[in-house]
Amino acid sequence: MNQLKNFKIDALIKNIQPINQDIKREALKRFDNLTKPRKSLGRLENITARAAGVYGSFNPNLRRKVIFLMAADHGVTAERVSAYPAEITRQMVLNFLDGSAAINVLTRHFGIDVVVTDIGVRGEIEGKKGLIRKKIAWGTENMAIGPAMSRKMAEESLLIGYEVFEKAFAQEKIDLIGLGEMGIGNTTASSAIISILTGAKIENVVDMGTGLQPEQIEHKVSIIKKAIEINQPNSKDPLDVLAKVGGFEIGGLVGCILAAAARRVPIVMDGLISGACALLVLKFNPLVEDYLFASHCSKEKGHKVVLNYLHKKPIFDLGMHLGEGTGAAYGMNFIETGFKLLNQMATFDDLK
Amino acid sequence: MNQLKNFKIDALIKNIQPINQDIKREALKRFDNLTKPRKSLGRLENITARAAGVYGSFNPNLRRKVIFLMAADHGVTAERVSAYPAEITRQMVLNFLDGSAAINVLTRHFGIDVVVTDIGVRGEIEGKKGLIRKKIAWGTENMAIGPAMSRKMAEESLLIGYEVFEKAFAQEKIDLIGLGEMGIGNTTASSAIISILTGAKIENVVDMGTGLQPEQIEHKVSIIKKAIEINQPNSKDPLDVLAKVGGFEIGGLVGCILAAAARRVPIVMDGLISGACALLVLKFNPLVEDYLFASHCSKEKGHKVVLNYLHKKPIFDLGMHLGEGTGAAYGMNFIETGFKLLNQMATFDDLK
Repeated sequence: MNQLKNFKIDALIKNIQPINQDIKREALKRFDNLTKPRKSLGRLENITARAAGVYGSFNPNLRRKVIFLMAADHGVTAERVSAYPAEITRQMVLNFLDGSAAINVLTRHFGIDVVVTDIGVRGEIEGKKGLIRKKIAWGTENMAIGPAMSRKMAEESLLIGYEVFEKAFAQEKIDLIGLGEMGIGNTTASSAIISILTGAKIENVVDMGTGLQPEQIEHKVSIIKKAIEINQPNSKDPLDVLAKVGGFEIGGLVGCILAAAARRVPIVMDGLISGACALLVLKFNPLVEDYLFASHCSKEKGHKVVLNYLHKKPIFDLGMHLGEGTGAAYGMNFIETGFKLLNQMATFDDLK
Repeated sequence: MNQLKNFKIDALIKNIQPINQDIKREALKRFDNLTKPRKSLGRLENITARAAGVYGSFNPNLRRKVIFLMAADHGVTAERVSAYPAEITRQMVLNFLDGSAAINVLTRHFGIDVVVTDIGVRGEIEGKKGLIRKKIAWGTENMAIGPAMSRKMAEESLLIGYEVFEKAFAQEKIDLIGLGEMGIGNTTASSAIISILTGAKIENVVDMGTGLQPEQIEHKVSIIKKAIEINQPNSKDPLDVLAKVGGFEIGGLVGCILAAAARRVPIVMDGLISGACALLVLKFNPLVEDYLFASHCSKEKGHKVVLNYLHKKPIFDLGMHLGEGTGAAYGMNFIETGFKLLNQMATFDDLK
């Protein structure tokens, strides 16, 4: 079922290894010896130790941190499922390239690079430096009347995500990544994916997105129900789910996650959309779970559904729901501090 | 009841002004115009707007951030209420001065200064640079057999906290502060204060501290009950509570908070101990509440009691319980990013 026509992606998926449990245990032991009450860094100790298991080292060099920000449009916006017009996607990409969006402010603050990819924005984006142009189409089709994209396009989106990661990695080694996205309509696509892959009721997943009123949320629920009924996505086949009710940026991030896991780079999730990506990835290869780190809990109730399903607790909860990787940026910083604490603190033996 | 013999502190308390509600509202309005879904930075918008109200400006210069770390010992450790020996307080002060404790690692990472004060550590600390020596005594007395300190010493601790803040402020203007402490036995003192000032049952406040077993926690509860019975602290008189069941570092931080509020500098709380300080401060002047910002929720259950009592939600919850200001360091960084977002993001009008 999971067989992909693209051999590169297929090989990539099969190539992902379990994390190093010995190093994880060693990191936890080291935390116990530091000058602090035992376990007093709480879950930060477990998070850092698991990341150490990803690296195979408890003292990795976290020099280059990157947020992969994938942008695309969604045909389902024709059904008025979003509080903002689809044109905002393109405008926000321009805003990212100008360095004036929330994610730019946060990544400047935290010393994180942002790699912005147009993987399917509606309309051309001209005359701007720094954009990776990998447009599959001018947005997906309307999933309420047929599949969002062909199976071939879904594979293409994975491949693009993989290639964007690999190209950035080849330019300079990447030590930690975060997932970011922009796409008016993508909470609708993500809610559909989450409902299909977790078995949660659509009503328990769908929320206000960029700012819907209660009656508009009901409408959004009905559109997702319609999309699932018409397309009959196969929950055992992640590529089928992605093609029928997904999005290009969602597929792109799935490709990024797979590429990062194959390179043993920890992946920090953001909100609802990256949660949907994580669920898809785990259908391809469940080993990736140990490479994925939760950052915040979004205000979108579907995000809590994903986090519970993955048995992951968020680091912080400010009721944010902005996307772009904003939660991931803070999460990456927590992981960075976890390693600094692990490696720079004295032990009680040092004090004597 | 709240009358203090020290006119300087008394004048300071009376001098604290309400925050600027107009600027707070203006900051919230500005957040609504930024290129993001409305309210999508969640509680970070409210936190930042309230801090703007403290400054009287939505674009403050956050150049100098300081954690005031006060250290002192507690006579009540004679009752075996802590998992670590009292000697650890002194060792940890040396560790702070060497730059090898958790708080040093985090403040280096976040660009925060640490001002370490010995306000009552048991034993001399010689030959180390960077320590402010304001020792009131070699630790408090054992509150299980009498008052922890005299009323005069309690006033002195407030004055020291005030003077330490003012001296640091005079050297270079301070824009944001965090509260940090070190003192074996101080979760016992803080739990007593929290129980007295919130009315919560002692059993619902007391927790493991630096690592007690369940039967040791029961013992800690019985010691606190004994201390309250013997000393009969007056819950309407914060200085009486501080003197009878408090600690020198607790009084010092109360003085810091009052000084910072008088200078219109936001104060970021840490865990249980700074929660007890906040409760004491609000008995002196309830206006200070708007100057206080929660950072994390400690694993100590008494901290949740304080946060609920103050109607403050934490920014993050990692189950940390390390003290020293470690949670505050992260919290200060969130506030800093809040202002960067408010001032560096484009508005939707800019995009047109």
